[in-house]
Amino acid sequence: MRTSVLFSGGKDSALSALLMEPFFEVELVTCSFGLLPNQELAAKTAKELGFPHRILSLKWEILEKAYEKIMNDGFPKYAINYIHEKAIETLASDPDVKFIADGTRRDDRVPVLSISQVRSIEDRLGIQYICPLKGYNRKTVSTLVERYLRIEEGPSESIPKADYEIELRELIRQRHGDEKIKELFPAHIQSHVLSRKELS
Amino acid sequence: MRTSVLFSGGKDSALSALLMEPFFEVELVTCSFGLLPNQELAAKTAKELGFPHRILSLKWEILEKAYEKIMNDGFPKYAINYIHEKAIETLASDPDVKFIADGTRRDDRVPVLSISQVRSIEDRLGIQYICPLKGYNRKTVSTLVERYLRIEEGPSESIPKADYEIELRELIRQRHGDEKIKELFPAHIQSHVLSRKELS
Repeated sequence: MRTSVLFSGGKDSALSALLMEPFFEVELVTCSFGLLPNQELAAKTAKELGFPHRILSLKWEILEKAYEKIMNDGFPKYAINYIHEKAIETLASDPDVKFIADGTRRDDRVPVLSISQVRSIEDRLGIQYICPLKGYNRKTVSTLVERYLRIEEGPSESIPKADYEIELRELIRQRHGDEKIKELFPAHIQSHVLSRKELS
Repeated sequence: MRTSVLFSGGKDSALSALLMEPFFEVELVTCSFGLLPNQELAAKTAKELGFPHRILSLKWEILEKAYEKIMNDGFPKYAINYIHEKAIETLASDPDVKFIADGTRRDDRVPVLSISQVRSIEDRLGIQYICPLKGYNRKTVSTLVERYLRIEEGPSESIPKADYEIELRELIRQRHGDEKIKELFPAHIQSHVLSRKELS
């Protein structure tokens, strides 16, 4: 059974892939609007982890709609959730894709689909959506990441990743400058996966 | 890292154990009020699956309180959830137990702890609670069970299991007879795990 895991290069999506690996044939999928080349880094990380990887192009209009949302809202939550939903829908429209997974944890708030959004996607598009970390709290996830992955961490602007936020930030930077980004996105710590840890 | 998986002999708790097996040292734990010997069957199943197993005695007063609840409510949901919460608390009070897991699925309604109940237990008792199937829908769980486990299925009264329901049913049978059980418990299909499937 093949599963497509939405992969940003971060620790949550990488750990999700590791947890599924014994039971599914895992491929990693990184989304792109074509605005930044960050998917290349995700491809490199996927190779380090030993998983097949591909880039999924998302329609530019999804990014424009997310841009409208964040500019209206003044905060990123609904814009990021919107991109996440559209990313899953885009992936689900591939007839070869039957299982889609991501790195959503128990305590996550963004990006998180509601149970009705999930059921709607599953019913409309005939896929099964899996969140392997949904039953794990932050502390247990950290324990597993510490055990199985080498990562680097830092403020979101300094860590190269391929999550939904990065291209939305870039669009806002191009149109409004760096100050606007600081205004809209709360500062937070991001992680980027380097490789698996050798188990002793 | 050792994790204690609450184990009824059913497919959900068995699949949870299988999903954790590559990453944790799994022990299976079956709860008992001492009213029925069904834990022996769970012990046998655990042995078939190749996991260490132990029986956890629960205080009789928990069963009496659950009995009060179901007699007042006229349906089993809150009584079963109450036993589940107390079972996790009892297990969590063992100082050697750090991780507790169970077979709760995404679409489950009973037994399910609320997120505030979970956080309260984690904070008060210093354990981490894991639901490996929480991010899996019914269909995906069935697909994985079909692939990895041999099971038998049937109406709840005919399938020997060691879930929380079985001793509560027995107490009601002893005090009120079989008719009362039919009145209080909706008929549903239960499963009992026989062994792992040999993978071809």
